[in-house]
Amino acid sequence: MEDTLFSDQIGPLRNNIDRIDSQILTLLAKRQEQVEQVAALKKQCDMPVYHPAREEDMISRLRTRAREKGLDPDVTENLFRVIIRQSRVKQTFSMQYKGVRSGAAVLIIGGAGQMGAMFASLFEKSGYRVRILTESDWEAAPRLCEGIDLALVSVPIEHTVAVIEKIAPFLPAGALLADLTSVKKDPVAAMYKNHTGPVLGLHPLFGPTTSSLDKQIIVYTPGRDMTAGHWLVEQLGLWGAIPVHAAPVEHDEIMEIVQALRHFATFCFGRFLFEKQVKIQRTLEFSSPIYRLELGMVGRLFAQDAGLYAQIIFATKERRQLLKQFAASLTQHIEMLENKDISAFTRQFDEIAEWFGPFSDQALRESTFLIDRLIERF
Amino acid sequence: MEDTLFSDQIGPLRNNIDRIDSQILTLLAKRQEQVEQVAALKKQCDMPVYHPAREEDMISRLRTRAREKGLDPDVTENLFRVIIRQSRVKQTFSMQYKGVRSGAAVLIIGGAGQMGAMFASLFEKSGYRVRILTESDWEAAPRLCEGIDLALVSVPIEHTVAVIEKIAPFLPAGALLADLTSVKKDPVAAMYKNHTGPVLGLHPLFGPTTSSLDKQIIVYTPGRDMTAGHWLVEQLGLWGAIPVHAAPVEHDEIMEIVQALRHFATFCFGRFLFEKQVKIQRTLEFSSPIYRLELGMVGRLFAQDAGLYAQIIFATKERRQLLKQFAASLTQHIEMLENKDISAFTRQFDEIAEWFGPFSDQALRESTFLIDRLIERF
Repeated sequence: MEDTLFSDQIGPLRNNIDRIDSQILTLLAKRQEQVEQVAALKKQCDMPVYHPAREEDMISRLRTRAREKGLDPDVTENLFRVIIRQSRVKQTFSMQYKGVRSGAAVLIIGGAGQMGAMFASLFEKSGYRVRILTESDWEAAPRLCEGIDLALVSVPIEHTVAVIEKIAPFLPAGALLADLTSVKKDPVAAMYKNHTGPVLGLHPLFGPTTSSLDKQIIVYTPGRDMTAGHWLVEQLGLWGAIPVHAAPVEHDEIMEIVQALRHFATFCFGRFLFEKQVKIQRTLEFSSPIYRLELGMVGRLFAQDAGLYAQIIFATKERRQLLKQFAASLTQHIEMLENKDISAFTRQFDEIAEWFGPFSDQALRESTFLIDRLIERF
Repeated sequence: MEDTLFSDQIGPLRNNIDRIDSQILTLLAKRQEQVEQVAALKKQCDMPVYHPAREEDMISRLRTRAREKGLDPDVTENLFRVIIRQSRVKQTFSMQYKGVRSGAAVLIIGGAGQMGAMFASLFEKSGYRVRILTESDWEAAPRLCEGIDLALVSVPIEHTVAVIEKIAPFLPAGALLADLTSVKKDPVAAMYKNHTGPVLGLHPLFGPTTSSLDKQIIVYTPGRDMTAGHWLVEQLGLWGAIPVHAAPVEHDEIMEIVQALRHFATFCFGRFLFEKQVKIQRTLEFSSPIYRLELGMVGRLFAQDAGLYAQIIFATKERRQLLKQFAASLTQHIEMLENKDISAFTRQFDEIAEWFGPFSDQALRESTFLIDRLIERF
């Protein structure tokens, strides 16, 4: 009898839900039309696609309204982030290949490498005349440099300075010289010294396999005559990237932490798991989603190129010095463990927690959000 | 002039988008009402919440309609997966409390603590008669133990064994004795020694702030008479958790890695950032999404309870020994750095990569998926 009750009543409710879903779809389609008009207008007026303030403002208002209507504000935010991103990707797709200086001649030195090839393709799609210079083709350098507007050095870190010294004599005086190396002090100094025209250091914080530049960071460190180099920064922004400004020295200091320390710590963690011959798959059966995520960060490193990480970790004396300090700091804590000094641990913990400040809570929120995605998906 | 064109035209378009978003919210609220009615009906008729066939059918139809309306079917699917999951979580909340042994008497020792309170609430919602024993109330122990079917010890790790010894004499011979401690060897041995009836060790791999047990792991380590204890494992499964079986010793070895090593490494990383007074917010401006995610794992730790992590890290002599080995291993790699021995690094790297095997690729895939979600969201 209850079964009949159920099947009698569930049908109309499910139909209501389906009808509501259909209305939501209709509204999403209408929304998309409006977004396409915005994109067309932005293109016509040469305005950037991404408008962080507008997005955050929309999200805040949506959260408030969701709460008023008895909806979960976090879930609502998630939904609209998906919707908004989709509309941004759509806008970017129709806009990103606009060239700030279409027709200008760009020489990519190391353009056969993965990173060089990625930029060659972007420049080409945006209407630039692209030339490629490879290692095996150096005798063509003088000819390829004739009349170029930009020379972009995209070679492994250990060759950057030498390649800059070698190419500089062939460059037209007014050409912009830029590089894509992950350290900036020495390459920018070398470009400054060897080229009298405009100089710009770049460091794209992503690999050549990235599917789009959307919201990817590119650090730019001006060397000389930023006015003459600014079009390139603007072009990166049009491709969807977020250009971040820094002086070469500040850039290198930050990368010591963001890249060298982090990758070294991850390497050592993976190495220790290997030394202990830990049964990874069995530990995963016992794993909270957050462990899976953290172990994934370690595993991820080792799915990538050893040479690339060696470059990053070994790059400079300063980096190696920092990692030595890190090992010393870690070893100090062992003493605390041996003395079973729990109060020292909690005191230090609280001190660090306070220092991290609001970032900790934000990190907890963000990672919880991701863990939910991980649970949904896997 | 173009600027005026832009500002004249963008306003109305943005207003249209805001109006559409508001209508979507109204529909989502209506949808939620219908879902609540479905949940109530399912509860009344004892029907399961999750109906995979219905969900997949809905998704297929939504994809088709999305295509008809010119919407991206994948994005539409993502959106509705979020909406549907939310409605499932809501329904599960009101339904998951079916009791395997409703009416049985459960005593939670430490039931005023966060974890104890969480389980007390789950048992109560599932129709168990729940009694709470707190530290300040020990004289009530004999009375509270009368006729109980389950005694669940939920006290801080350093008190577990003592509390087991203290409570055991009052237990009915047939009562199941279980604990929730994050180490299992000593507590299970103590339960086995002090109680002649069925014994079961549990370790929930999540904190008391978890919003639902859905897909959370609970390790169970049988002590004595698993037949008599099995209903509790079944109950955990009904609450949505995934019970994982292990012997106490294996459990503790795995937790040395999954908890102690991992949290210690994260603690040391955070500590070093503090010692170097790294400007966290500035480094985030330079951060690829993966750095944000990794730094988030560190920040997340410090948003939580120092005492809990002290317990985990300091728990046993074996753990402290392992962490010492870790520090020694890390220090060895410093020599490699000082000798600029890149070939040793890449050799070790490749060796570890091979050992990680398919997990690395899987980790790269999973973390890339998450990074995409992170980019969408933040």
